[in-house]
Amino acid sequence: MKLPSGFLASGVRVGLKTKGPDLALIVAPNGADAAAVFTRNAFCAAPVVLSRAALKKSKGRIRAVVVNAGCANAVTGAPGDRAAKSVQAHAAKLAGCAAREVFVASTGVIGKLLPDARINEALPGAWARLSVGGLESASAAILTTDAGPKIAEARYTIAGEKARLVGFAKGAGMIHPNMATMLGFLMTDAAIAPPILKKCLKHAADESWNIISVDGDTSTNDCVLLMASGVLGNRRVVREADAADFGRALTELCQKLAWMIVRDGEGASRVMDIEVTGARNDVDARAAAHAIATSPLVKTAVNGGDPNWGRILAAVGRSGARVKPERTNLYVGTLALVKNGLPTAYDEARAGKLFSQERVRLRVDLGQGTGRARRWASDLGHAYVSCNADYRT
Amino acid sequence: MKLPSGFLASGVRVGLKTKGPDLALIVAPNGADAAAVFTRNAFCAAPVVLSRAALKKSKGRIRAVVVNAGCANAVTGAPGDRAAKSVQAHAAKLAGCAAREVFVASTGVIGKLLPDARINEALPGAWARLSVGGLESASAAILTTDAGPKIAEARYTIAGEKARLVGFAKGAGMIHPNMATMLGFLMTDAAIAPPILKKCLKHAADESWNIISVDGDTSTNDCVLLMASGVLGNRRVVREADAADFGRALTELCQKLAWMIVRDGEGASRVMDIEVTGARNDVDARAAAHAIATSPLVKTAVNGGDPNWGRILAAVGRSGARVKPERTNLYVGTLALVKNGLPTAYDEARAGKLFSQERVRLRVDLGQGTGRARRWASDLGHAYVSCNADYRT
Repeated sequence: MKLPSGFLASGVRVGLKTKGPDLALIVAPNGADAAAVFTRNAFCAAPVVLSRAALKKSKGRIRAVVVNAGCANAVTGAPGDRAAKSVQAHAAKLAGCAAREVFVASTGVIGKLLPDARINEALPGAWARLSVGGLESASAAILTTDAGPKIAEARYTIAGEKARLVGFAKGAGMIHPNMATMLGFLMTDAAIAPPILKKCLKHAADESWNIISVDGDTSTNDCVLLMASGVLGNRRVVREADAADFGRALTELCQKLAWMIVRDGEGASRVMDIEVTGARNDVDARAAAHAIATSPLVKTAVNGGDPNWGRILAAVGRSGARVKPERTNLYVGTLALVKNGLPTAYDEARAGKLFSQERVRLRVDLGQGTGRARRWASDLGHAYVSCNADYRT
Repeated sequence: MKLPSGFLASGVRVGLKTKGPDLALIVAPNGADAAAVFTRNAFCAAPVVLSRAALKKSKGRIRAVVVNAGCANAVTGAPGDRAAKSVQAHAAKLAGCAAREVFVASTGVIGKLLPDARINEALPGAWARLSVGGLESASAAILTTDAGPKIAEARYTIAGEKARLVGFAKGAGMIHPNMATMLGFLMTDAAIAPPILKKCLKHAADESWNIISVDGDTSTNDCVLLMASGVLGNRRVVREADAADFGRALTELCQKLAWMIVRDGEGASRVMDIEVTGARNDVDARAAAHAIATSPLVKTAVNGGDPNWGRILAAVGRSGARVKPERTNLYVGTLALVKNGLPTAYDEARAGKLFSQERVRLRVDLGQGTGRARRWASDLGHAYVSCNADYRT
């Protein structure tokens, strides 16, 4: 797949991971408007702090993005801040732009200082390899234990012009011993002002990145960056009303990538597609959906293809969401397992089959209001434990 | 071990579990003062609703306790309520007391209606077997997938008299497919008024039952019942100040039983003894300790004996507790792994050894105030998955 017009990319090997490319570069030769969302983890990494500040200073203008895998540069104090700044400054020199127009991101081992000198040495080589076909090597370079690259595309119309959105992502939660982070880089060729990019990205994130859960652990380094090169030539969109189709496409793109991430969650064999409806309000709905998505008992039952609905209701019951048992319904797919707080005479074999699919659709209706929430969560099986406990870091 | 004076017990087989005794009876022939704590799960089981109401109606007087394993009688609606009431009424008839003086509890499969007729048929046989040595069979009858009975004792002095506290318990969280529940039954020979029992039990619970976590899932049936027969002959204690040593012993007893439960958590090989200190307040400390205790990444690292401290800080960072990285310290045992937000030059082999012990003592100091909290949590390994995913219910 080709990058949208106005972007070049490459991926090279520095040697921070045990094998494969581990340094990705994205460049917008004429610059791009940008917006980003970041982890809310209190121990956020040096590159997160630096990139957030840079994007603010540049008022959402970006020229280059430098991403490394193999070292998170998190919990590394002032030396970590200096290392991230050094890479940013070096890339800015190569790009001929201000440091604030360079976005840096890292993923990998927590507590390990970024080897900035080695990255800076590798940057000119990465620069020399920049191309419109560089998406593949860039998307490979940001991976840690992912099964493979995660790339997706969406199309939309803006100001009468046909536009493209392309994105790539990595990881879900903290998917490897000491490895961390979910990263996403999204690019479009249209001209859209940063405030509109930000609004659309926040909305899309709430419907995608923010509904997935592998292990409930958000990382120190999570970030998703959206860039718009404007090379398409449309009149720059500055009103939200003119970005409706863009917003739709962005949400679609983010959902595609988020689904890939959770499907590729550590040792995942299935994804639970959880919907809570009829809650007193959305806050209650989210609490209930979150409790189901993170319950080890629910996740292991789903791994075993076991229609163990008692665990689902028990999770809802401890979630803090206001519940009236006699108003509660539970479905897998379209099959009702519990109606008005009582188990139905459902067919056990059919329920087992529905719990054994790649996508297990669970819906809890609380019968109390219009609040609703959705979560996509991976299951929990031996492969998860093998990934996370079976060897020392 | 013998029961405290004023109590008799027995355990018999009804056939609700696949093998072994599954109906426990405790009787205080002259009655006992009592207090209890119950699950806060919104889907609380019929026996929980009934026993809570009975204890309120009887103003904390109790004559008999009937506990069954193999069927939780939870999410069973009105038929479940009737079944629990039928057992309560039947036992009251045998004991010659009011129904409100009978406490019922259940543990086992959720969504399965209590077979009250079978239990009622078995009650006279259980009654005939009541003895002061019946502790062993009663403690075995309440088990589901526990490795074995959990019995503990503590001694104390009250009004100048030497008194005994004996308790038995089962389970931790929801430790088996569809099996649920933590139950505890605590007895003492002293005379202590219900309000004092309640205060002391609440305090002890906060330091024991409420700090343990196997899987983060509280059940529909959890309850802990404390009874005081008064057979010791001391002047009935009605002031908290006169129950100080009792309170201490009760906390000790509850902590012993709670530790047994978490150590015997599903597939547990180690217990994390987690302490968060220096938080802005206790609420923050509890949030941080809870995040560590329930993080699958931390639990799998501890299972693997892996000093993967990045996962611990990442869990604290997403917990909602207010954190300043540069003030944060992390210890395993007395070994500092992180000081002022930076990794120390700790000895990797020594850290690995400390993470491989049966009790892994973790302490996070947030350096922000005097808030503190403690949690005991089991690890997460293949044995957990085998217990919860490897076969169908």
